[in-house]
Amino acid sequence: MAKNAFYAQSGGVTAVINASAAGIIETARKHPQRIGTVYAGRNGIIGALTEDLIDTSHESDADIAALRHTPAGAFGSCRYKLKGIEESRAEYERLIEVFKAHDIGYFFYNGGGDSSDTAHKVSQISDSLGYPIICVGVPKTVDNDLPLTDNCPGFGSVAKYVAVSIREAAFDVESMSLTSTKVFILEVMGRHAGWIAAAGGLAAQHEGDAPQIILFPEVAFNEQRFLARVKECVETYGYCAVVVSEGVRNQDGQFLSDAGVRDAFGHAQLGGVAPVVAALVKERLGYKYHWAVADYLQRSARHVASQVDVDHAYAVGQAAVEMALAGKNAVIPMIKRLSDDPYRWEVVEEALADVANIERKVPPEYITDDGFGITAACRRYLAQLIQGEAYPPYKAGLPDYVRLKNIAVAKKLTSTFTI
Amino acid sequence: MAKNAFYAQSGGVTAVINASAAGIIETARKHPQRIGTVYAGRNGIIGALTEDLIDTSHESDADIAALRHTPAGAFGSCRYKLKGIEESRAEYERLIEVFKAHDIGYFFYNGGGDSSDTAHKVSQISDSLGYPIICVGVPKTVDNDLPLTDNCPGFGSVAKYVAVSIREAAFDVESMSLTSTKVFILEVMGRHAGWIAAAGGLAAQHEGDAPQIILFPEVAFNEQRFLARVKECVETYGYCAVVVSEGVRNQDGQFLSDAGVRDAFGHAQLGGVAPVVAALVKERLGYKYHWAVADYLQRSARHVASQVDVDHAYAVGQAAVEMALAGKNAVIPMIKRLSDDPYRWEVVEEALADVANIERKVPPEYITDDGFGITAACRRYLAQLIQGEAYPPYKAGLPDYVRLKNIAVAKKLTSTFTI
Repeated sequence: MAKNAFYAQSGGVTAVINASAAGIIETARKHPQRIGTVYAGRNGIIGALTEDLIDTSHESDADIAALRHTPAGAFGSCRYKLKGIEESRAEYERLIEVFKAHDIGYFFYNGGGDSSDTAHKVSQISDSLGYPIICVGVPKTVDNDLPLTDNCPGFGSVAKYVAVSIREAAFDVESMSLTSTKVFILEVMGRHAGWIAAAGGLAAQHEGDAPQIILFPEVAFNEQRFLARVKECVETYGYCAVVVSEGVRNQDGQFLSDAGVRDAFGHAQLGGVAPVVAALVKERLGYKYHWAVADYLQRSARHVASQVDVDHAYAVGQAAVEMALAGKNAVIPMIKRLSDDPYRWEVVEEALADVANIERKVPPEYITDDGFGITAACRRYLAQLIQGEAYPPYKAGLPDYVRLKNIAVAKKLTSTFTI
Repeated sequence: MAKNAFYAQSGGVTAVINASAAGIIETARKHPQRIGTVYAGRNGIIGALTEDLIDTSHESDADIAALRHTPAGAFGSCRYKLKGIEESRAEYERLIEVFKAHDIGYFFYNGGGDSSDTAHKVSQISDSLGYPIICVGVPKTVDNDLPLTDNCPGFGSVAKYVAVSIREAAFDVESMSLTSTKVFILEVMGRHAGWIAAAGGLAAQHEGDAPQIILFPEVAFNEQRFLARVKECVETYGYCAVVVSEGVRNQDGQFLSDAGVRDAFGHAQLGGVAPVVAALVKERLGYKYHWAVADYLQRSARHVASQVDVDHAYAVGQAAVEMALAGKNAVIPMIKRLSDDPYRWEVVEEALADVANIERKVPPEYITDDGFGITAACRRYLAQLIQGEAYPPYKAGLPDYVRLKNIAVAKKLTSTFTI
């Protein structure tokens, strides 16, 4: 007898997380004798807790296929972290209650490290509560900080966006630099890991090409050395283009941008290191500057997505269902690189337990000795991830992104659950 | 006997100003019996004043063709305005001296209103100095504020970038809004005219679509009404996406970006109206926000350029040469719209004298009564300008933009000129 499946998107969305959703739903639809309906959580795991499930069987094949070219979270995502089982036992029990009520035998959780941890715990507790569920993670994070995978779906497209954008902006700055802006600063995401900032380095192919400076969270900001390098670039090349990670910290470990605002998790709300760096340049060196903060534009930029990234995202969705059907539990499909050139890769199986709470930063051998650039090894690693242009279809000059019907499943439980 | 031509790029560069350069150089190359060499000014008009000319005959046909898909100013541009003839007589005389030394009979000046004014004055003074030169303007400005033309080459591509970007970012915000960001603010260019901000409105096709709020320089900012509208959107749609022009002013005529917010160094945050608006939302409504400042990214985004815009830019370059060859002087080719649907247009001739010092703002009939949106008439006008995707070629995952050789012409004058 076919069991239903539950799928949820978790945490910050990406340009390609919906491609993973397409991979899951399309693959599940090929196995109607094994998987009944795929229910999606409205707003992620909160949809499961509140029994607010979306019946994806109402979505046409064409609309599900269109998820492959639609950014953001088609079913809604959330920032909601389940804590340990002892602390959050009621939540885990509620999940099992909802899964049981809707005859759900498969749980696909599309997110980063925290989501892997949650999926792993659901697997454990469901067993001990006598309603075993197959739990499979689906990797996703623009930050590229998950272990055990060549890269994280979502990252390749941000990487491409940032490399394309800094190349374009630097052409602009260079052509005006004699009489106008001399220093341009682009702020990118990456609170703890500098992968996105590193990707900006792909734009530079020859000596002197922009960006001449990358500021990584992995390297403590040294004002004197930074200013000296900016000056040297302006004197040598006429201008200087800087990519700065939002997570750059000073020598005392404080975020350069810390504005005192905190998000739901108590993290400092970043987004605003570029103006801080720009003001420093202006004050100490007197150069005219401009700065940009890409913010959500970078992680939603499906219009310039990497084909490799879209392929990875779809493949891990597909593989998650195939692993579940093979009876694998508490696993997560990851990307394994087989060769650089030509780039070949495959999907491999890893244990959810091994993913949680490990954050992969940019290693020292990927950062040049001066701390401002990427090494050849880093370039070799990153270059493959931005290959190919996976353009969405356009209508009337704009990307034709799908909006699903997202029809709710009738509730079966009389109990409610308050988030 | 063929005369040489001089071409210069002026002011802020765009994603398609090089397409105009391609139009000029390719058309000139078809008439070797009439036009000798096309010299380009290195860094715009400064190259003429300092006799720093680039010999474009060293550039291959393939490289000139590649200008059509390369953003920014391939020969360099500058912000350098020649004043009136009485004030700046030495500069005008110097231009004629350089033109005469290099047997230049045609002057093509690619810029906005100020450049038209300069080209017009050069035409007048060259005549009175006994070395008549045919002066033809080539329109360009992302701000879309020139009179006598349907639109300005450069604008359509920024318009497309902004509409695509706010659509994508809004998908992102909407999908996370239950537990995360509720208000997203995108700052775009347009110091005096709100055309670029208006273009963001194209992303909204149905009631409730983002952006729900556009802040125009043409509408004085009213804090109470703005906050009320943000609140209404969040309560109705779950989130609110705002496009704000850098040129928005308060009721006293002050730029909002100058209005008192200071960064860590105590500087007013210029080019930063988005964080000001965001802080207001946070302080008065308590909503979690994110903001982005597109800055140069928007005007250099050749990767998502409008095909119509590229076609316009090329066509005005081509027409400029054809007008010059037809003996027209002190003119500028402009775009005339013949029909909306299907969009048909032609290039028409206007007098340089009529272009100068007129700034075309977004008219009241293009802004909705509440001041926060665009009307159907505005949408009808803008929609055609973002049609078609003029993708550049890619190499190794990045746009393959051309860098010209830019070989200098040997100086012929012994006198120098200091800028």
